[in-house]
Amino acid sequence: MNPVAELFQIEHPIVQGGMVWCSGWKLASAVSNAGALGLLGSGSMNPQLLEEHIIKCKNATSKPFGVNIPLLYPHAKDHIETCIRNGIKIVFTSAGNPDTYTALLKSHGIIVVHVIANSKFAIKAQNAGVDAIVAEGFEAGGHNGREETSTFCLIPQIKKIASVPLIAAGGIYDGKSWLAAQILGADAVQLGSRFAACEESSAHTNYKDTVRQATEGSTQLTLKKLTPVRMLKNAFYQQIANAENSGSSAETLKEILGKGRSKKGILEGDLEEGEMEIGQVSALIEKPETASQIIQDLLQTYQKAKENLYV
Amino acid sequence: MNPVAELFQIEHPIVQGGMVWCSGWKLASAVSNAGALGLLGSGSMNPQLLEEHIIKCKNATSKPFGVNIPLLYPHAKDHIETCIRNGIKIVFTSAGNPDTYTALLKSHGIIVVHVIANSKFAIKAQNAGVDAIVAEGFEAGGHNGREETSTFCLIPQIKKIASVPLIAAGGIYDGKSWLAAQILGADAVQLGSRFAACEESSAHTNYKDTVRQATEGSTQLTLKKLTPVRMLKNAFYQQIANAENSGSSAETLKEILGKGRSKKGILEGDLEEGEMEIGQVSALIEKPETASQIIQDLLQTYQKAKENLYV
Repeated sequence: MNPVAELFQIEHPIVQGGMVWCSGWKLASAVSNAGALGLLGSGSMNPQLLEEHIIKCKNATSKPFGVNIPLLYPHAKDHIETCIRNGIKIVFTSAGNPDTYTALLKSHGIIVVHVIANSKFAIKAQNAGVDAIVAEGFEAGGHNGREETSTFCLIPQIKKIASVPLIAAGGIYDGKSWLAAQILGADAVQLGSRFAACEESSAHTNYKDTVRQATEGSTQLTLKKLTPVRMLKNAFYQQIANAENSGSSAETLKEILGKGRSKKGILEGDLEEGEMEIGQVSALIEKPETASQIIQDLLQTYQKAKENLYV
Repeated sequence: MNPVAELFQIEHPIVQGGMVWCSGWKLASAVSNAGALGLLGSGSMNPQLLEEHIIKCKNATSKPFGVNIPLLYPHAKDHIETCIRNGIKIVFTSAGNPDTYTALLKSHGIIVVHVIANSKFAIKAQNAGVDAIVAEGFEAGGHNGREETSTFCLIPQIKKIASVPLIAAGGIYDGKSWLAAQILGADAVQLGSRFAACEESSAHTNYKDTVRQATEGSTQLTLKKLTPVRMLKNAFYQQIANAENSGSSAETLKEILGKGRSKKGILEGDLEEGEMEIGQVSALIEKPETASQIIQDLLQTYQKAKENLYV
């Protein structure tokens, strides 16, 4: 059996990435009901809202689902406690130190997965006792690593030192990229962007429409003086890019960024002033689809890609 | 038969990328003798030197080899004429407009391949009548596209519109990445970095040693206000990065760059002041090897990767 499917007790080794303003109970439960692993993205929730989503998600699916917790977010500690109190069995941690909460989570019997973008943090996560790692390449949307290592180069690199199951993220769109990631060394794949644009995502229609219209070069990794983020190149991005090109300091960039930019872009659909986080695969996303249709398409195109190798 | 192997009349659908200061007759003939396609990198040669390399390469191999011509280089037109006069049968053009010389080359029965980093130029190249395209991802060394599309995202995108054989470049290291690129839609692969560091490369020992010591994050795509180039992060890179971070203009960057930086780095082995162009796969390159050993390793690991899918 696939080690990631076995770990999470799911049918297909596919994970829906936890994403701010996109992955609430509707998306996570739809993905889990389709036989993959749905994740609640707690990065855009306060602990009370997270608890509501956990309860709703439990009512909507009897299958395993998890919670993603970005460790640098102000509510991280409360989120961890909320997960423990509500009997969550799978937690993905990201954007922070895997030492901080792994032991605590494990002591409550929770499966812990940490998201990394380089070998250094993969080793750190493994030493902290995580059960699996997600290696996320440069092409992924949202927060991203400073080394800018692409999935093609990152997965073989991490595979060399991986002692736990490895989940590839960044650039995964269909069964072809799933199979390609597997060949490079991944046991499973995590998709963010394609689920961010699907029907059950809680993102605004404007955001989903814009993602479907995106083409090559529509996204850019930016805000490198703060924390690198990949986003669509809209008016807000251009303001950041202009400031960066003229040598603005981190402080000035923080001022331009302000508060609530991703909420404005993703949840409220402000196409000009919002931060529209999405990965490079947005160029391949073209039509509206449900989470279940995405999983079905992944399974079918994976099978076809495998068969095509022997035509 | 593989369409790229058939096009070039070679045994294995593997191309050694034409690289400045690395790929003279020694490397190109070694690669061709091993059953793949060797390319002379004319970007660091004047027309007389190119002619010498063509003659030496013909003496060193009876198998097909080609010449890579970066079209924006001052000698491009003379190089084209040198190729025609010397009966070269395969020309790869890059860094320029495929309209300019494709018809001329084709009228002399020369197979023309153009290197692109986006769909727009892929279509332009196909309309110009090229016989194949190389799609080069963000992770590749040296000159690179502005869209920063990674190989994982670029190949499926180009495959959608490709009407000629497609060669993947950027991030290709071994048979696993070769097979992964094939699954994403490539008919063949082009490797630069691994050949740049091999025995027959004319690069300086200092350069090769440094490439073998490179780890994740050792390279960076930089000089984006001029033409983006991926290079190792040495003192020269840091000078560029500092200037960019403080908002320096293209003119200032040109002054810092000066003339002959890649020669200084790659050919002369100046580790501090030279421009050390190399791709992200440098992190995977560890031991000295010959061109023939690289081809053998590619074939063996490709076969093994295919077999592993059915274990």
